[in-house]
Amino acid sequence: MKNRKVSIGLDYGTESARALIVDVLTGEEIATATANFPTGVMDKTLPDGTELEPETALQNPNDYLEVMEETLTTAMVKGNIVAEQVIGLAIDFTASTVLPTTDDGTPLCTLPEFKSEPYAWVKLWKDHTAQPEAEEMNILADKRNESFLKRYGGRLSSEWMFPKALRMLRKAPKVYATMDKYIEAGDWLVWQLTGNIRRSSCQAGYKGMWSKSSGYPTKEFLGELEDEFSSFVEDKLDSNVYPLGNAAGGLTSKWAEKLGLLPNTPVAVSIIDAHAAVLGTTVYDAGKMVLALGTSTCHLVMNKENVEIEGVAGIVEDGIVPGFAAYESGQSAVGDIFLWFIRNYISSEYIEKAKEKNLDIFQYLELLASKIPVGSNGVLALDWWNGNRSTLMDADLSGMLIGLTLNTKPEEIYRALIEATAFGTLTIIENHVNQGVAIDELYATGGLAEKNELLMQIYADVTGREIKVAESSQAAALGAAIIGTVAAGESNHGYNSFEDAVKAMAKLKDIKYVPNEINRELYQKIYAEYKNLYQEFGTGMMKTMKNLKNIRNEINEKK
Amino acid sequence: MKNRKVSIGLDYGTESARALIVDVLTGEEIATATANFPTGVMDKTLPDGTELEPETALQNPNDYLEVMEETLTTAMVKGNIVAEQVIGLAIDFTASTVLPTTDDGTPLCTLPEFKSEPYAWVKLWKDHTAQPEAEEMNILADKRNESFLKRYGGRLSSEWMFPKALRMLRKAPKVYATMDKYIEAGDWLVWQLTGNIRRSSCQAGYKGMWSKSSGYPTKEFLGELEDEFSSFVEDKLDSNVYPLGNAAGGLTSKWAEKLGLLPNTPVAVSIIDAHAAVLGTTVYDAGKMVLALGTSTCHLVMNKENVEIEGVAGIVEDGIVPGFAAYESGQSAVGDIFLWFIRNYISSEYIEKAKEKNLDIFQYLELLASKIPVGSNGVLALDWWNGNRSTLMDADLSGMLIGLTLNTKPEEIYRALIEATAFGTLTIIENHVNQGVAIDELYATGGLAEKNELLMQIYADVTGREIKVAESSQAAALGAAIIGTVAAGESNHGYNSFEDAVKAMAKLKDIKYVPNEINRELYQKIYAEYKNLYQEFGTGMMKTMKNLKNIRNEINEKK
Repeated sequence: MKNRKVSIGLDYGTESARALIVDVLTGEEIATATANFPTGVMDKTLPDGTELEPETALQNPNDYLEVMEETLTTAMVKGNIVAEQVIGLAIDFTASTVLPTTDDGTPLCTLPEFKSEPYAWVKLWKDHTAQPEAEEMNILADKRNESFLKRYGGRLSSEWMFPKALRMLRKAPKVYATMDKYIEAGDWLVWQLTGNIRRSSCQAGYKGMWSKSSGYPTKEFLGELEDEFSSFVEDKLDSNVYPLGNAAGGLTSKWAEKLGLLPNTPVAVSIIDAHAAVLGTTVYDAGKMVLALGTSTCHLVMNKENVEIEGVAGIVEDGIVPGFAAYESGQSAVGDIFLWFIRNYISSEYIEKAKEKNLDIFQYLELLASKIPVGSNGVLALDWWNGNRSTLMDADLSGMLIGLTLNTKPEEIYRALIEATAFGTLTIIENHVNQGVAIDELYATGGLAEKNELLMQIYADVTGREIKVAESSQAAALGAAIIGTVAAGESNHGYNSFEDAVKAMAKLKDIKYVPNEINRELYQKIYAEYKNLYQEFGTGMMKTMKNLKNIRNEINEKK
Repeated sequence: MKNRKVSIGLDYGTESARALIVDVLTGEEIATATANFPTGVMDKTLPDGTELEPETALQNPNDYLEVMEETLTTAMVKGNIVAEQVIGLAIDFTASTVLPTTDDGTPLCTLPEFKSEPYAWVKLWKDHTAQPEAEEMNILADKRNESFLKRYGGRLSSEWMFPKALRMLRKAPKVYATMDKYIEAGDWLVWQLTGNIRRSSCQAGYKGMWSKSSGYPTKEFLGELEDEFSSFVEDKLDSNVYPLGNAAGGLTSKWAEKLGLLPNTPVAVSIIDAHAAVLGTTVYDAGKMVLALGTSTCHLVMNKENVEIEGVAGIVEDGIVPGFAAYESGQSAVGDIFLWFIRNYISSEYIEKAKEKNLDIFQYLELLASKIPVGSNGVLALDWWNGNRSTLMDADLSGMLIGLTLNTKPEEIYRALIEATAFGTLTIIENHVNQGVAIDELYATGGLAEKNELLMQIYADVTGREIKVAESSQAAALGAAIIGTVAAGESNHGYNSFEDAVKAMAKLKDIKYVPNEINRELYQKIYAEYKNLYQEFGTGMMKTMKNLKNIRNEINEKK
């Protein structure tokens, strides 16, 4: 097997990273290794004890390098792979996870003078400190009628790069002044490995307000936020943004040695994790929506035409596969809602009964909930426990349960919670279809797609669509490996197109979830009720959720 | 102390009965004894194994006699009371708890030929088998524009006597044909003790569609339901109905001997349990609403004028104290909602923490919930877990929780549930006041009033009214004892008026709950949100609850 060729996907999540070695011809997953980031997520203090403000989430960039070396070399040994077999590698990363560096790529947090400065560290995607800046930018963009707003469903998020940069300018002006580059962590890793700054069109497009046709936001817009901010793009970013599938360059000798690979091994332009998973789920063209089902859900679908539609989180030309506009939507809490319920609201009686049946509590609840005929629980939920990302982009909405009686059982609520997230996904699907972006097929990946058959069947029944499931349980890493082969190209044992690479390397499970027609019809009736609540509480006359939040905020401010 | 005079209250609940011996001059509760009904509530099978239809709840009338003898004689011994000291006794009972008997008062279920016939046993108030008959009577009464409907908020309940009788006629015609009397259990006990049939104006008025001015429903109305039913009133009821405070007669020698009392001891006309509690809570005139806070809540208030208002469960002239119209409203689940939550949705982690603090889980949740500033939980509920009795009389409504987030804690939901029941009570109060029935003061009695200080303070803050609490923890039994003294009259060491009796015998606790002005203002804002949901989901455009129930009913019918 020594002459088979492989590609390596490096998949960076929130808590850990994974290296996956994949056979270029067959897609066989030869070996994998994972490791947690040693420093972990810092949300209370820095390593030296410096306290962090609420909503902060930081990381240590050295962790990324350390873990890359560890996982990649472990996987090589496990898979009995030698350097000559590796035709390319690619990195997928969370975004916007972003850090300030010097001109040579040194992270500012590694300089002694900045080690106690929170803003010098990596700001993780889920750092929400820049909420006020995001709000400010939304108001200004709206006032100035900025065209980029349309690509983001009318709202920018505090998780994105520009609000984070603006906040840094205000809160840590010395860090801001000192940094030469402000860069996505995925792009920074590529820079480390190749010596080249090659910003990804995926990260720039979805999290950096960049587009192929109009670039970044204008000096005028930025300058109205803060004088000094007007030159942010030219001073701190690099104007070059590269499409996916390109090689950012070859491995430097230093990194080739560290990783046990050959110098000049092609390294691809990086990609966001959920977007890599699309490729790993066999999808490379239009009309196929991929649901990445986890603590939250990301919905990605491509379309040949770049139609501007409302109610999506982002539309990026060449956002996944060059030649297609890629549409991202999301539900900001899915698995998290089930976790909330199961961790806090399950009695010891149920825990005991699960034990008796040798099931964990998730399996036991799934068993009970699967026996409930559709509609007989009588309970309906609005799945807005963490606000509504798509189609409303409104963080001030909240969760709701209706139809509760003295006989309502925990498994009936659990089933209603799953159903509500399915209705939320159907709402997102209809939002695309009604505005001219076709969705012909559904594909699923992620923990819930693998583990929760009840959920998958409910999604099929609710959406009235067959759902296919990625064979790989690490679809993002597989997607990155696929990108590695395209970066290498056909002349280097890789592929010249995403289509060819995906067809060869990505697979589906044999199982697919087929809608039950009787359940589908019943769910149509319940969905009509969901839609009515969605409209009334989301955009209609029922302002209860916002009013309750306002009251709560007033109380908390007084404290 | 052998020359002090006492009165005996016999309080019949759903599971047990209590005898309470009270000093006539001071109201001192000298001795009490309780006992469970030996047969209990039959909701699955009769004693001989006969299966019962769903929603059935039956009792054995012999239990009532057995338990009376046991508790009364035990209390006499405990209190060291002799027969000569007892000036009177009175019975309070749940209603409509009703049974068929022969002409001499023998319950039909005690006859061998009827022992396997469910309709021959006592139908407990909470037997809901007559729901179809109640619906039918509602439709007909509405069509015929029957004036009695106005006294009952526009709707009759399946818990009442006439729907139960109509169903018996249809389902058990032999029982119906054989019975000479259909009688409330409280009135039946009085009949047993005195040999006289003296139907109570309280039971007849609230549960028998009777009124002082127009009597029972007409032959024409009843005949339209079923030909044979037209003569129900003259055949099976007795036309005489007696106001409260009257003596129904004196103890027969047989019962005097059984109970260890003197023959001819005055026995009062019976009363419904919640109504007796009004007297035991010191209230004997207009403008003072009594909240009997338990698994459900009963709201009773008197008014000098008999104003017909909407949205109440019943209005009865002389319904408690002669000379006043008594208004009954209700919340069909209060403590039951808290029980539902605490029994099913509390994790073992909380149970452990409660144990560490040496608290039961109710106390522990109360402790946690009491630390939550008003409005900061951000959660709001509609307290309709068992439908809405007042002001909407709609059993098809259901419970709702809104404002849920991934950070919502069990104690925040618990507090929201308490708050929702307080908002429900405020809605009932405003319903009276807005239609001209004054409510100047609030009084509370029942388990929750005694045990849950947090709930009481929330009720004071939400209603913006001071709440006084009955000193007695058995206010119904005390109220019955008070009625016993009025039945005896001043010439027999008792009293000639409810006012005199109550003033002498009923007391309040020293503690009263005074509204906190800051919380009251905050609750006004949250109540505005509650009212909006109440209107939209109760009588407005949001039909979600009914639609979900319809879907559920369709499913269940198909099974």
